[in-house]
Amino acid sequence: MSRKPIPRFDDNYTEDSARQRRAFLEAETGVSLTHTGHYSLPPESVRNNTENFIGVVQMPVGVAGPVLIHGEDAQGWFYVPMATTEGTLVASYSRGMRMLSESGGVKTTVIDDNMQRAPMFEFEDARAAKRFVQWMQATLPAITAAAESTTRHGKLLNIQHWQIARMVYTRFNFSTGDAAGQNMTGKAAHAASQWILAHSPEPVIHFSLSGAIETDKKHSHMNLMHSRGKRVVAECVVKRDVLAQRARTTPEIIFKQRQRSYLGAMLAGSAYNGPHSANGIAALFIATGQDEANVVESHTGFSFMDITPEGDLYYSCTLPSVICATKGGGTGLSTQAECLTMLGCNGEGKARKLAEIVGATVLAGDLSLISAIMSDEWVSSHDAYGRNRS
Amino acid sequence: MSRKPIPRFDDNYTEDSARQRRAFLEAETGVSLTHTGHYSLPPESVRNNTENFIGVVQMPVGVAGPVLIHGEDAQGWFYVPMATTEGTLVASYSRGMRMLSESGGVKTTVIDDNMQRAPMFEFEDARAAKRFVQWMQATLPAITAAAESTTRHGKLLNIQHWQIARMVYTRFNFSTGDAAGQNMTGKAAHAASQWILAHSPEPVIHFSLSGAIETDKKHSHMNLMHSRGKRVVAECVVKRDVLAQRARTTPEIIFKQRQRSYLGAMLAGSAYNGPHSANGIAALFIATGQDEANVVESHTGFSFMDITPEGDLYYSCTLPSVICATKGGGTGLSTQAECLTMLGCNGEGKARKLAEIVGATVLAGDLSLISAIMSDEWVSSHDAYGRNRS
Amino acid sequence: MSRKPIPRFDDNYTEDSARQRRAFLEAETGVSLTHTGHYSLPPESVRNNTENFIGVVQMPVGVAGPVLIHGEDAQGWFYVPMATTEGTLVASYSRGMRMLSESGGVKTTVIDDNMQRAPMFEFEDARAAKRFVQWMQATLPAITAAAESTTRHGKLLNIQHWQIARMVYTRFNFSTGDAAGQNMTGKAAHAASQWILAHSPEPVIHFSLSGAIETDKKHSHMNLMHSRGKRVVAECVVKRDVLAQRARTTPEIIFKQRQRSYLGAMLAGSAYNGPHSANGIAALFIATGQDEANVVESHTGFSFMDITPEGDLYYSCTLPSVICATKGGGTGLSTQAECLTMLGCNGEGKARKLAEIVGATVLAGDLSLISAIMSDEWVSSHDAYGRNRS
Amino acid sequence: MSRKPIPRFDDNYTEDSARQRRAFLEAETGVSLTHTGHYSLPPESVRNNTENFIGVVQMPVGVAGPVLIHGEDAQGWFYVPMATTEGTLVASYSRGMRMLSESGGVKTTVIDDNMQRAPMFEFEDARAAKRFVQWMQATLPAITAAAESTTRHGKLLNIQHWQIARMVYTRFNFSTGDAAGQNMTGKAAHAASQWILAHSPEPVIHFSLSGAIETDKKHSHMNLMHSRGKRVVAECVVKRDVLAQRARTTPEIIFKQRQRSYLGAMLAGSAYNGPHSANGIAALFIATGQDEANVVESHTGFSFMDITPEGDLYYSCTLPSVICATKGGGTGLSTQAECLTMLGCNGEGKARKLAEIVGATVLAGDLSLISAIMSDEWVSSHDAYGRNRS
Repeated sequence: MSRKPIPRFDDNYTEDSARQRRAFLEAETGVSLTHTGHYSLPPESVRNNTENFIGVVQMPVGVAGPVLIHGEDAQGWFYVPMATTEGTLVASYSRGMRMLSESGGVKTTVIDDNMQRAPMFEFEDARAAKRFVQWMQATLPAITAAAESTTRHGKLLNIQHWQIARMVYTRFNFSTGDAAGQNMTGKAAHAASQWILAHSPEPVIHFSLSGAIETDKKHSHMNLMHSRGKRVVAECVVKRDVLAQRARTTPEIIFKQRQRSYLGAMLAGSAYNGPHSANGIAALFIATGQDEANVVESHTGFSFMDITPEGDLYYSCTLPSVICATKGGGTGLSTQAECLTMLGCNGEGKARKLAEIVGATVLAGDLSLISAIMSDEWVSSHDAYGRNRS
Repeated sequence: MSRKPIPRFDDNYTEDSARQRRAFLEAETGVSLTHTGHYSLPPESVRNNTENFIGVVQMPVGVAGPVLIHGEDAQGWFYVPMATTEGTLVASYSRGMRMLSESGGVKTTVIDDNMQRAPMFEFEDARAAKRFVQWMQATLPAITAAAESTTRHGKLLNIQHWQIARMVYTRFNFSTGDAAGQNMTGKAAHAASQWILAHSPEPVIHFSLSGAIETDKKHSHMNLMHSRGKRVVAECVVKRDVLAQRARTTPEIIFKQRQRSYLGAMLAGSAYNGPHSANGIAALFIATGQDEANVVESHTGFSFMDITPEGDLYYSCTLPSVICATKGGGTGLSTQAECLTMLGCNGEGKARKLAEIVGATVLAGDLSLISAIMSDEWVSSHDAYGRNRS
Repeated sequence: MSRKPIPRFDDNYTEDSARQRRAFLEAETGVSLTHTGHYSLPPESVRNNTENFIGVVQMPVGVAGPVLIHGEDAQGWFYVPMATTEGTLVASYSRGMRMLSESGGVKTTVIDDNMQRAPMFEFEDARAAKRFVQWMQATLPAITAAAESTTRHGKLLNIQHWQIARMVYTRFNFSTGDAAGQNMTGKAAHAASQWILAHSPEPVIHFSLSGAIETDKKHSHMNLMHSRGKRVVAECVVKRDVLAQRARTTPEIIFKQRQRSYLGAMLAGSAYNGPHSANGIAALFIATGQDEANVVESHTGFSFMDITPEGDLYYSCTLPSVICATKGGGTGLSTQAECLTMLGCNGEGKARKLAEIVGATVLAGDLSLISAIMSDEWVSSHDAYGRNRS
Repeated sequence: MSRKPIPRFDDNYTEDSARQRRAFLEAETGVSLTHTGHYSLPPESVRNNTENFIGVVQMPVGVAGPVLIHGEDAQGWFYVPMATTEGTLVASYSRGMRMLSESGGVKTTVIDDNMQRAPMFEFEDARAAKRFVQWMQATLPAITAAAESTTRHGKLLNIQHWQIARMVYTRFNFSTGDAAGQNMTGKAAHAASQWILAHSPEPVIHFSLSGAIETDKKHSHMNLMHSRGKRVVAECVVKRDVLAQRARTTPEIIFKQRQRSYLGAMLAGSAYNGPHSANGIAALFIATGQDEANVVESHTGFSFMDITPEGDLYYSCTLPSVICATKGGGTGLSTQAECLTMLGCNGEGKARKLAEIVGATVLAGDLSLISAIMSDEWVSSHDAYGRNRS
């Protein structure tokens, strides 16, 4: 092993610089990077995505679906690209999509949408902090102007605030158009904070651009409650006969077990009380060039079901913090743009549509996994009953 | 849009079947899948990874480092491949790795290691459930034998149990060698459960292979406490002069802000009280063929720091649930295997080594981001002080 | 043992009816209720407090203090009555009060103040729920009028709302004057809900006066964040020499351990990261006729400290959900009214003053307990160092 | 207001010293303490309960019940004394007890029982901490001997441990007989820690008798999971006709709303997902001389229900951390001992019996409150349906 620095070049985004870095690594570590060096994207295209570029990971993509979605933005049938290495995942999501579609399709809606940065301000004592909050509320228009001076698409929706001791923890909530918006909100909150620091009548004795309550790249109860990204609901009345035919189970069997799993989720303190939101989100995020780390915020949420008077299964998932974009980040890269296009989600005005597809995908995957567990359990449970009761 | 089913073939893992599926999607959705169809991995190789295979997402890879690690399994200098589309990420992790290495390197250790499946059993009443628990504890050798009959590498370490009402929620904890082990533990827990259902002196009135408290693919407080995967600690005494030179900040400035951010994390109810574990984990997981959804479990943890008597910064992260493998899953795919090899982590006996590299990477990224925020804040804070105090 | 019903009388609040009930219980259970029957309060006075009245529990009261408070409402020296059976509690709080007072006194402030009831409304689907929220926001004046028609002192401050699936969970937040306000808000929210049910353009398919998110008589992260009752901060710069003289410890020793305890609190998922808020709150609540069960909401909060440039200890507690009243409930009972009067908190316009005294009391108790632990630890730590290092 | 110290006497537990302290407070604050000075308990009896004793708070006591309990220790009919100032509480619990009794009675069981103190140990680095844990496990018999040398009734059951960074957070779990055991476990853990500090092969660089994870006097997820005190389950199959007759509601109506309230509890992050455990616990704790602050730990838990094949309502509560005693603390005071005696719980061997009565009481109160809400809702819901659907 070596302590040599990774080579840098005049232009770090050429075929040659990538090749030379691979050669360096091959020499230093003994690895062969043949496959990593096999790609069709122009190195130039990742200039804003990756430093020390050496090539690509080839992440296999399968397609699930089609799934019928009745969203506000996503409407019709969709083939969903999933980048995953977990076997059976695509097949399972496909099965769920079939059950949802045969039941009439998934209804989706985006009910909230914001992105935030969370500056904190500290004062001499708690009473000064309290006065600061009052001043901040009274000065909201000027603060908004300062924030929005840095961005064309971002709008400051509101400033939430929590005081602990003499510190004021804020959440500057922005609408960010079709970008995920972390950078946009960072810049805008920085500008707003500078304006505040320059104008606050209360002396600020300590400041940080983040007091950690935006919980960027972390799950938090804050984000479960107050959303970071898009708050999406997907719901479907799954037909009794579809469950019987496709999954050999019933609404009652599924419902019964879920009550117990919801309780298990409370015992565990789970970020999501459904089966496995993260699988579908991660696979769809990677395929479409989303920030892959945002799956941690996006996977939190609520599963809820009920049996309808007609004996079908009302089934829903509510995902409060789906962070997705249709421009910026990795969305413009060659393969990722193709996958976005496959969904009709490439470019302006498509972010909510993509969020609705995420919701529908999660619902499909959860339904399929629950059904799989239950059909096995039905057998087991049957055996258990048989032996013990007879 | 269309409701036509995705084409299936006699062999779904050939160049031709993938090409025909791409053609189908191109016809149905109007997309061009040229780049997605550009790859060097043999379609045959993803047979156990992806259904309805159509090609790959080219995920750009940059290399961070080198970083000096003094682990129990990872020892020496490492170049760390990161698959990411978030600009500045690789550069920032590289800077952190440099600061850690110049301070003498990162110490890492894996302090716990298990994977679980969580069957639940329901009884006629709470007292029957209580008796069942006593029986289960007395019958542990036979249950263990049933579980281990399904696996060569898995060992049942223990069974945790929690009773709610008349239900017993268990966690069957296994060691799983170099595999992540979700499937292995699923099969073993299933076999053990069947044995239990056949032998329990208390009638089981309901059973599920999962009562949801393994919290697979979900963050949970359970996993923060009791680990799912490997519990890793990475720590380093970061030198005062390294901080000054590389990041224009001091241990005191960093320490002061972190106390406030830890409090913000409590307010928010965060899964991780450090800056951004998920970024490094996601990028490294994708590069090395890990299950990309496991970043949600893996990103939880504890950041802890202190100022040493010598005025340096003791800095650590503790990640209780790093789920990683060096065989199985996507680890054998062409590019992913290359990235594992670059780390000396390909194959048998390397899983803990990889977990230690994950820990060191997270520590580097956190240190770098904290420093970046603080050096900016230092200016801001200085201004604020200057104006308000003068 | 018996299944006879407890006797009822024409007037259940006379000396005679209480005596007859005691006689009944003595006959049925063999107990002697001599002491329980010894009291000076008029049975008539508990007509709105207790059914099946049989007498009193004599809860011993000690007095802690005096403590010097510089609040917005509480100003000067206070002797604090504490009803408790835990030995050393009063002495420990007294010691803390002495340390705070000798350091110049406690600064207190109430930074938020509301009480809530949380109706939930369910609709045909998520999109109808979303439209309902928009309608509710547009109709706020009429809803407010309906709510406030039931109360003289209550004012509807705002309605928070969270949508899950097709349900809308609301929190109607009221100011409630000097009453704790649970009943007042219940009635007002009921009236508002009836108005909503009668006027909502979206059919409400299910309604409950509580969707559980006011978390009445339960701790919750919701209440930690959004307050239920009064949000109080108490803070003091504890002098280095006071710590040395009264507690044989230093700011550095206390600070060091607290960092580790804050981390322990995160591991445990604690409702409060300080030592023992509940002790002081419970004792003060019982003494002053508060609803004794509200200690569960009130005990949550944040401990925060720092070492000042002068080497003293800035120490604070922030209690987001102190639920206290100076009229209504048990505040008018004979002994409880005396204890309130001792604090200058009996009657109109005193609720915030009482909340500030609660904050100061908690700070005193925490400081004292921390100091006690640390002075012992100092010895232990010293020994440990001595043995191991020499 | 005054800064005069509270008077101290040669013997602080005489009628005269209490009287003189009251006179002092009357002079200093202008209050009259006539009622506070009216009591029958001997001041001598509170020597280990209260410092600066001035008299008593007369807490009104009502009696709920009778309730039929089929516990392991509590068997038969019980009249339950409740010390409360919240009107309708006793009546509501009585109604619940009647419904439970008419349905055949409550089944109760204590499924776990321990009390803990949580020392933490810090080492030079994480690897030293890891070695320490191994040593501690290998040395358990000697540590146990050291711990148990301080107590006749306490037994060290096990030591749980969690490592964060280089710190080891432990939980020493003891059985404590009929005492709540906080002091007993404190002394035993202190002795064990001293032994550890004297014998650990790894140098301990910092030690605290508490790392905060016993979460004494705080709710925590730790205690929800791992119990602090007694883990109690109370359950009952509530008959359909009893619900109809006593509460004008049905199992289906109750069940439907609870599913939604359980979801609300998850949204709120509640310590208890049922309606109001704290009310019954607080009232019973105060009446029977329990540590009144322990209601914060005790109120956490799980509500679970299901509809039986016969159409009745299986209803349960699981309280993991009921901290109660039948000797020590305030249990021996005059009125408190009477209330314990009324329950047949005074003295040795009765603590589990008391815990079972707590469980049954909570179940009764929850059932009654749910029914009350639902019968009102039934009307409201009916109206809503009527208007919207017709």
